[in-house]
Amino acid sequence: MKAVGIVVEYNPFHNGHLYHVQQAKEKSGADIVIAVMSGPFLQRGEPAIVSKWARTEMALKGGVNIVVELPYSFATQHASIFASGAVDILHSLGCDYICFGSESGNIQEFIQTFDYLQKNEALENEYIKQYVNEGYSYPKAKSFAIEQITSTISGQPLNLSTPNNILGYEYYKAVKKNHYPIELLTIARKQADYHDEYFSSETIASATSIRKEMLKEDSIQSIEPFIPGSTLHILQTYKDNYQVFHTWENYWSYLKFRLLQLTPRELASIYEVEEGLENRIIKYAKQADSFHHFMSLIKTKRYTWTRLQRICVHILTNTTKVEMSNLTKPAYIRLLGTSKMGRTYLKEKKKNILLPVISKLSSYQHHQLDLDIRASRIFAFGAPLSSQQELIDIDYKMPPIMIDTEK
Amino acid sequence: MKAVGIVVEYNPFHNGHLYHVQQAKEKSGADIVIAVMSGPFLQRGEPAIVSKWARTEMALKGGVNIVVELPYSFATQHASIFASGAVDILHSLGCDYICFGSESGNIQEFIQTFDYLQKNEALENEYIKQYVNEGYSYPKAKSFAIEQITSTISGQPLNLSTPNNILGYEYYKAVKKNHYPIELLTIARKQADYHDEYFSSETIASATSIRKEMLKEDSIQSIEPFIPGSTLHILQTYKDNYQVFHTWENYWSYLKFRLLQLTPRELASIYEVEEGLENRIIKYAKQADSFHHFMSLIKTKRYTWTRLQRICVHILTNTTKVEMSNLTKPAYIRLLGTSKMGRTYLKEKKKNILLPVISKLSSYQHHQLDLDIRASRIFAFGAPLSSQQELIDIDYKMPPIMIDTEK
Repeated sequence: MKAVGIVVEYNPFHNGHLYHVQQAKEKSGADIVIAVMSGPFLQRGEPAIVSKWARTEMALKGGVNIVVELPYSFATQHASIFASGAVDILHSLGCDYICFGSESGNIQEFIQTFDYLQKNEALENEYIKQYVNEGYSYPKAKSFAIEQITSTISGQPLNLSTPNNILGYEYYKAVKKNHYPIELLTIARKQADYHDEYFSSETIASATSIRKEMLKEDSIQSIEPFIPGSTLHILQTYKDNYQVFHTWENYWSYLKFRLLQLTPRELASIYEVEEGLENRIIKYAKQADSFHHFMSLIKTKRYTWTRLQRICVHILTNTTKVEMSNLTKPAYIRLLGTSKMGRTYLKEKKKNILLPVISKLSSYQHHQLDLDIRASRIFAFGAPLSSQQELIDIDYKMPPIMIDTEK
Repeated sequence: MKAVGIVVEYNPFHNGHLYHVQQAKEKSGADIVIAVMSGPFLQRGEPAIVSKWARTEMALKGGVNIVVELPYSFATQHASIFASGAVDILHSLGCDYICFGSESGNIQEFIQTFDYLQKNEALENEYIKQYVNEGYSYPKAKSFAIEQITSTISGQPLNLSTPNNILGYEYYKAVKKNHYPIELLTIARKQADYHDEYFSSETIASATSIRKEMLKEDSIQSIEPFIPGSTLHILQTYKDNYQVFHTWENYWSYLKFRLLQLTPRELASIYEVEEGLENRIIKYAKQADSFHHFMSLIKTKRYTWTRLQRICVHILTNTTKVEMSNLTKPAYIRLLGTSKMGRTYLKEKKKNILLPVISKLSSYQHHQLDLDIRASRIFAFGAPLSSQQELIDIDYKMPPIMIDTEK
């Protein structure tokens, strides 16, 4: 059996994701689709709107055959670490292909840019340094540097200022640098742009615009055209059970409590809190009356919004520099869900899977896994008091979700 | 002018306290009454039911002339440290008398017991050690030891198993050990016992029973017979403004969040977390669905309920062993409120007051004061989200309360 890997967050799973799953299978000709998915906290430094379990169910109902968790130490990270963790896991599971979305859907752009940048790495680093010194954030500086270098490539240069292309490029790079025997495929995103806040098509909308709509009203019926029926049902059930869609604002009083409780010195021990940022964060925590207000107070040109959000996630989960200092590669594969074909694949490949596959948390111990457990428990505090205990318990006790029908 | 000092918590100020203030003045013949009062967290390891400002106002309306704050580092402590901090402050303010409540109202008992125990200190320590080794908590062991030693005193021995007598004895000891020129007076408690949960008199009830009644219903009218009218008004205003009477249960989700966020090693750095207690605390935090449930899970014979509650306060305020390691004496006097006569007294004694008197937090810096500021901010999280910011801000900005009429 052959497998195509995809890297996802499904926040929530929508028609664009459905198209991606179908195209990944069709383009690769693989038998099954394996998704590596962020857990409770996402790459852009936000809580997922619903738990990893609800999102796993959406994925399985949407045609994914195996869902595994991208560990916290890779999930809430900038594109390069995020991508390398995800690619390592897909490689460990024996994926023959990785298929990602990009603006143009043309893999040649990635190949060409990668080859060219490989040869000009020193120059790239020099340009980045220069832009950082001018006060730009690292991602901005990098995107400017690459643009400057690749402008001399003949043909279409890869636009590395969009989130999808950046991530795609990092997947490509991780595969190549590790010499993994994985073929990379890309498909063009359908219509909606990543950051679109409004619906612009009849069936495809960005996750951002869908979330915005979900949070606006009591009923989520208005997002029906843009998501599979299974997603709608799962979202509705989640809301009925836990009385919440998780957003940063739900965690604000806990984050603020923690920030008013700690000293600058303690804050400086948290992962990614650098360069005196601790004083700025504590100062504004006292004044801000919402998470958005707080973010707008601490934001400077030097730090991207997403980087600051990731820092806030690390404060919320109490993730320290020391804890993150030795986490270079994923140490295990946490299985979240399988379809029947997914289970057949895992049985067939059993001996060739390169990392321990964990179905039951109590059967495995690793300090990397401790961070996942903690993050999932902290995620529960976004819910009203009456739902917290159930959400705290669920992650530790939950076996992988199994569905028996294939889409 | 002469001053009599009293040590109080006023949680809330009731008719028994009113009687104490009047008796202190009458018995001592002093011109004014100075109260040193715990701030947001109390000796028994609980949040005060209302802020220190509301309680200061109650005190002034009840006839106290000067209210100062017992710093956090002395307030949330066992009887001996609590008493020594309070006595030091009253001494620094030039008090000629200290008047405390006791079971019998007979100072001779305290004098006799102190003299006798002074001579038998070695024996006392030996007995204490013996009882602790048998698994008793330190306060229990101490009370047994003293009982054993003083049983040979001729006349009435001091009963050192009641909270009032224990504290009274510690005040006495602190004065004598420091050779402070302060005369000690004691008055008998009127009727209600410290721990009484039910009303047993027509005008005097314990603070415990009053709080219990306050929390039971929407209206606080039922406590009217037991408190001055001014207290009733202040409590009602507080509830109207902040929508809360603070209890441990209000802080439970924050405490739990923090306990699910930290590692055993980090917890062991918190003041008073000793002997592997960190593992026990973290284990049960995951399971408990209320503060009371949590407390009943972690309670053992070795630790008193109040000691465990104090530990919980230190976790909530993130007070570490390192921060508490050098705090042997109060470093300042935080002024919370004055009557006209109180202000006259302070003016008259200005040059003889032994510690800096702080009216404005921004004008003074000290690491002991940092703990007070933090504790007051953390206290705000017991209120609903909509009142938190106001309560966070108030303590730092609030000038001492001044009233102009004397009772």
